Amino acid sequence: MKKVNIIRFIFVLAVFSAVTMIFTASAAAQTVYKWRLVSVWPAYTAFAQVEKRLIKNIFELSGGRLQITGHAAGELVPTMAVFDTVSKGAAEMGIDYPGYWQGKNSVFDLLGTVPMAFSQYDVINWYIHGGGRELFNEMYGKYNLIYYMHSVASVGSGIRSIKPIRTLADLKGLKIRVSGRAAGYVMVKAGATPVMTDPAQIAQALAQGQIDAASFNAPKVDLSLGLGEVTKYNIGPGWNIPSGVGGLMINKDAWDTLPPDLKKIIEVATMDSITFFSSLSEWDTIDALNEFQEKGTVVTKFSDKELAQIEAWVWEFIEAEAKKNPDFEKVATSIFQYMKNYSIARKYQEPYSHGRNPAKYPKLPKLK
Amino acid sequence: MKKVNIIRFIFVLAVFSAVTMIFTASAAAQTVYKWRLVSVWPAYTAFAQVEKRLIKNIFELSGGRLQITGHAAGELVPTMAVFDTVSKGAAEMGIDYPGYWQGKNSVFDLLGTVPMAFSQYDVINWYIHGGGRELFNEMYGKYNLIYYMHSVASVGSGIRSIKPIRTLADLKGLKIRVSGRAAGYVMVKAGATPVMTDPAQIAQALAQGQIDAASFNAPKVDLSLGLGEVTKYNIGPGWNIPSGVGGLMINKDAWDTLPPDLKKIIEVATMDSITFFSSLSEWDTIDALNEFQEKGTVVTKFSDKELAQIEAWVWEFIEAEAKKNPDFEKVATSIFQYMKNYSIARKYQEPYSHGRNPAKYPKLPKLK
Repeated sequence: MKKVNIIRFIFVLAVFSAVTMIFTASAAAQTVYKWRLVSVWPAYTAFAQVEKRLIKNIFELSGGRLQITGHAAGELVPTMAVFDTVSKGAAEMGIDYPGYWQGKNSVFDLLGTVPMAFSQYDVINWYIHGGGRELFNEMYGKYNLIYYMHSVASVGSGIRSIKPIRTLADLKGLKIRVSGRAAGYVMVKAGATPVMTDPAQIAQALAQGQIDAASFNAPKVDLSLGLGEVTKYNIGPGWNIPSGVGGLMINKDAWDTLPPDLKKIIEVATMDSITFFSSLSEWDTIDALNEFQEKGTVVTKFSDKELAQIEAWVWEFIEAEAKKNPDFEKVATSIFQYMKNYSIARKYQEPYSHGRNPAKYPKLPKLK
Repeated sequence: MKKVNIIRFIFVLAVFSAVTMIFTASAAAQTVYKWRLVSVWPAYTAFAQVEKRLIKNIFELSGGRLQITGHAAGELVPTMAVFDTVSKGAAEMGIDYPGYWQGKNSVFDLLGTVPMAFSQYDVINWYIHGGGRELFNEMYGKYNLIYYMHSVASVGSGIRSIKPIRTLADLKGLKIRVSGRAAGYVMVKAGATPVMTDPAQIAQALAQGQIDAASFNAPKVDLSLGLGEVTKYNIGPGWNIPSGVGGLMINKDAWDTLPPDLKKIIEVATMDSITFFSSLSEWDTIDALNEFQEKGTVVTKFSDKELAQIEAWVWEFIEAEAKKNPDFEKVATSIFQYMKNYSIARKYQEPYSHGRNPAKYPKLPKLK
């Protein structure tokens, strides 16, 4: 019987070892990461919709191993604290508009939108194939952040106003809410006073006469702020925000704890977001323009000659900023190199092309 | 000791049950699907690059549970047999250009490209938000296929020729290789003879004078066929193929065997492909146009008046085909409804918009 007992003992031991091995293996594969995401966007915008899609996709693709809880602007931290919150790791992820961080480094303004230049598809082409992705990660990397582009908004609205603005000369003496320093520079050149108003306060500021006009975002977003009620006039095109980047910031230390497959899942899920949101932003524009039309909004445009003048002012701003900030120069050179290289394709594809070839380019020392 | 033996017996039984359960569970979660993918594209085209990316992404996202072996055109079956191969389940997946199946149903021609209409981004907007995806699945569903859009090529080349073509009148009497029935109809109207030449034979047919001119695909693809050597002239724009869809066909019976998470992985991976390939196609165009320029290709364009004439002929073809085929009418109505609805956005966004608003639309009974 002794021999039988030993065999039984060995057998039970083997079974135990097998069980232990299986549990260890599945424990490693099934570590659940519970992360928090803070966003710069309020819950009522279309941006919140694509954030939810991203979170759901990551959950499903990872079989529940990466669980992200999303927090809209102000829920956990205010919009302007999102960058530092993720940079310091108080939340693992954040959704941003790069331009909001221009106070830290003027290059972020350029990464958010390129006035008079980047269409929605130019941004995507440049990000994926033109070195854009590397530059985003270089700039955000200085703040302990990994960056994935997550959305690119369609052409923004022009300027909405209470009194009609029909020419550049009409801007003179007005107080205008604009975002972005290049747009602010253009306003000053045109004799207007640029004002920074919190998005949630724009409609009220217009209604109470604190500002005369405002340019914020895409038509659908403007509509959600109630700008259809308080402004009767809208002059385009959206030269100051021909496209708008949204991104997913990830704290570098948190990122380093992820296994390779979860990193891959995040990367592919953001590519899905780009496709989904770019088209959603276009789709929303159709609805919003129809609604503005029903509300009686009168739409006009600056003439080609006036746009050429605006372009000259924007390039002036870009050239001056490039001289002050090497990061700005580096990114601006890459952006306008893309614009120059791509110009042959845009011209060839006309009238099926997207965006525009500038007649001139800003003077940047390394631009070929 | 009897009691102890019983306890021991129960314990061993419990361990066995646990082990069995774990193995069963992990076997279910870890069923490996080994699938075959057949493509209509030769390995030397950019399409092969994005197919490889799709296969790799699906492998990595699924942790190796969905393993796909890709086969370029002709490796397993010839291009024109890809549809039936997947429809019948001899391969689980296929990569296609819908227009190749126009012989089965003329609606596939329209799903591949919409002459004079859909830009690359119009296709994506319509597919995701305008009911396009549902229509693709309705039409392919008749052949036991599930469909995911996988790539959208950028604006195609116009017509490349040995002798100069500078006006519509110059087409008269020429033998021209074109793809798509609408383009063939335009050629006939212009007094030319449309010819269908296998892509691999186009350069030779031109060199030997069997055809006078050819229109195939995007500049990079044309370049890979050697058309830079045999044609000196190129007249644009690419009205006959302003965008070109590529899709992933999946045999419905094979699809039904997949667990929900693998279906989700395929869906998200194709969204990645769309973003990646749309921009790659643009990027490749820059290179190809520069190469054509170095080879001395002379590029011209049809005038706006001539394009209006071409458009009238294309609409004539679409109206006639819609009367013959209810599937064609259904898809054409959805496409041109998108074009009409979107026109307000395109006009508003100008000059940052993509594609064009037709001056007129084809007459389709249900088009509002």
